[in-house]
Amino acid sequence: MTRQTRSASPYEVVYDPVRPELARVVANVVALGEEESVREDAVAGHLAHVLEAPGKRLRPAITLLAARLWGKPSDLDVTMATGVELLHIATLIHDDTVDGADLRRGQPTPSSLWGRNVAVLLGDYVFAAAARFVCDTNSVRLVRRFAETIMELSRGELNELLDGRTGSVTRAAYFRRIYDKTASLFTTAAESGAILGDGSEADICRLRDFGYNLGMAYQVQDDVLDFESTPEEMGKPAGADLRAGVLTLPAIMLIEQEPEWAGMLAALADAGLGDDHPPEHEADRRAGLAEAITRIRDSGAVEESCRVAQGYVNSAREAIQGLPESPECAALQTLADMTETRRS
Amino acid sequence: MTRQTRSASPYEVVYDPVRPELARVVANVVALGEEESVREDAVAGHLAHVLEAPGKRLRPAITLLAARLWGKPSDLDVTMATGVELLHIATLIHDDTVDGADLRRGQPTPSSLWGRNVAVLLGDYVFAAAARFVCDTNSVRLVRRFAETIMELSRGELNELLDGRTGSVTRAAYFRRIYDKTASLFTTAAESGAILGDGSEADICRLRDFGYNLGMAYQVQDDVLDFESTPEEMGKPAGADLRAGVLTLPAIMLIEQEPEWAGMLAALADAGLGDDHPPEHEADRRAGLAEAITRIRDSGAVEESCRVAQGYVNSAREAIQGLPESPECAALQTLADMTETRRS
Repeated sequence: MTRQTRSASPYEVVYDPVRPELARVVANVVALGEEESVREDAVAGHLAHVLEAPGKRLRPAITLLAARLWGKPSDLDVTMATGVELLHIATLIHDDTVDGADLRRGQPTPSSLWGRNVAVLLGDYVFAAAARFVCDTNSVRLVRRFAETIMELSRGELNELLDGRTGSVTRAAYFRRIYDKTASLFTTAAESGAILGDGSEADICRLRDFGYNLGMAYQVQDDVLDFESTPEEMGKPAGADLRAGVLTLPAIMLIEQEPEWAGMLAALADAGLGDDHPPEHEADRRAGLAEAITRIRDSGAVEESCRVAQGYVNSAREAIQGLPESPECAALQTLADMTETRRS
Repeated sequence: MTRQTRSASPYEVVYDPVRPELARVVANVVALGEEESVREDAVAGHLAHVLEAPGKRLRPAITLLAARLWGKPSDLDVTMATGVELLHIATLIHDDTVDGADLRRGQPTPSSLWGRNVAVLLGDYVFAAAARFVCDTNSVRLVRRFAETIMELSRGELNELLDGRTGSVTRAAYFRRIYDKTASLFTTAAESGAILGDGSEADICRLRDFGYNLGMAYQVQDDVLDFESTPEEMGKPAGADLRAGVLTLPAIMLIEQEPEWAGMLAALADAGLGDDHPPEHEADRRAGLAEAITRIRDSGAVEESCRVAQGYVNSAREAIQGLPESPECAALQTLADMTETRRS
């Protein structure tokens, strides 16, 4: 198998102040597959595949930038940022296994290459390795927050699996779910940087707010892009969430406006449920999906969802407004701008 | 569904010195499914099912007993023991998912009830909750050892999945694998108790040895029982490991004595490999398995494996021999005796 080297991240432009540190994070991640304890095992090759896959490196960059905001960078920021990136990788492995996804960042997923069993255990290994890196910060506070983040991530995915597929999903349940599955780790990435960078409790709170709001905006934008973007931009056809049976904000907004859609979207959702659904009534289902996507686009729900994302971006910007001017702070502001307009 | 209450553990007799603490561990485990953050979610019912299932409670009992050996019990031993038990529960959820097992302790497994996707994420949630409990001990040393244990557990399962199914498995690879999948957590259970009970570094080392050797004996006995016991004792037919394609010590010993069995066992193993193997040549395979089981029993490999287990039990007994006499120390010695003769 020919392997791609890490591709340029769209966020490359904000990485300038932490470029050497981010390179050390990537080196740490890759080195995990080369440790003494696995080098002679069959596991090593599998680990190398998942650890060398290209990624945006957005979450560790947030940790590194946040750790420098008060001019007192910690030696441990690279260690923490490695834990953050590994946790993100582990989550992707399990999510792709649960979703039955074949490709991620243009590479075959572990579950498609080696089966779901190997993928589950590889994910576990990477989860634990992430936690081990965080332990190396010697901060119980950071480790505890990290463990809570893993609980939130899995609770979010579980609720999406169990609840996200019914027409009765509310905005409140949606926002709780996207906090769990996305904003939780953004929050931890920013907050942990502030803790390591010796920010005051008030500063730590600001960075927590920044991470939370940026993460919420990021996920709402992701859900908007699922209805808006072309397959070329997102690497998958429009309406993939609905197709997989997951109701996101634009769909929930349509149901709020026109409650009669609840039953139909739930039916489409049910048809997407389960591991091995037979392809019955597939033509009907496709037509129903196409109609739902058109209706959601025409209803203004996409634009309305964008405004929700903008609201979160504004809150993220405000959270870090009073901080001392620095290239790192400017980079975090740029990150917020980019999240507002992100297309992939 | 009618739920069974926690059944009596065969190890009940050794729990006397820590009975109230063990009850608090069980209460903590059950309470995890009733936390504010999940109470209103669909997740709550699923969590309750996995957390209320009866278990031996052997590993948390080891932590609690070890923490009392020097007469200085820590308030945090119940917290740590809860983490140990939750980690064991999380491991069982993922193992049963990977093995496609339908029953565990007489109860349907999460994967058989709700599908493998839900089971993977439930396991993740419980893993992280286990780590959160360990964080509450405020000891980075304990948390780090705990994270390493999760890495070892998943590496062991991965190696069993990737390597355990070839006729070329060596004793060395087998012992490494059973350390990872079983003895690692026994080691951590005993060691963490000693750390919390204010043992000296030499004492901590003794308890680590005790846990290691007890865990190795426990797993070798488990693998012996797979060839020796009746279905009534183990709740599954004899030779289940071989049937599932996993080579354990008795099978490896047969191959050492009669190398011509390597190819045949590997072929049987290969036929058990993969998620969805077609039932081709099933009659041939059954006959081959029956012959292999008879040959392993007749070769003396089972008795020889028992001697290996006895060796580990003796080492476990020796490890804690010099400790001050106490009911807790006597209980750990009894535990070693019971492991040597265990039938289920």
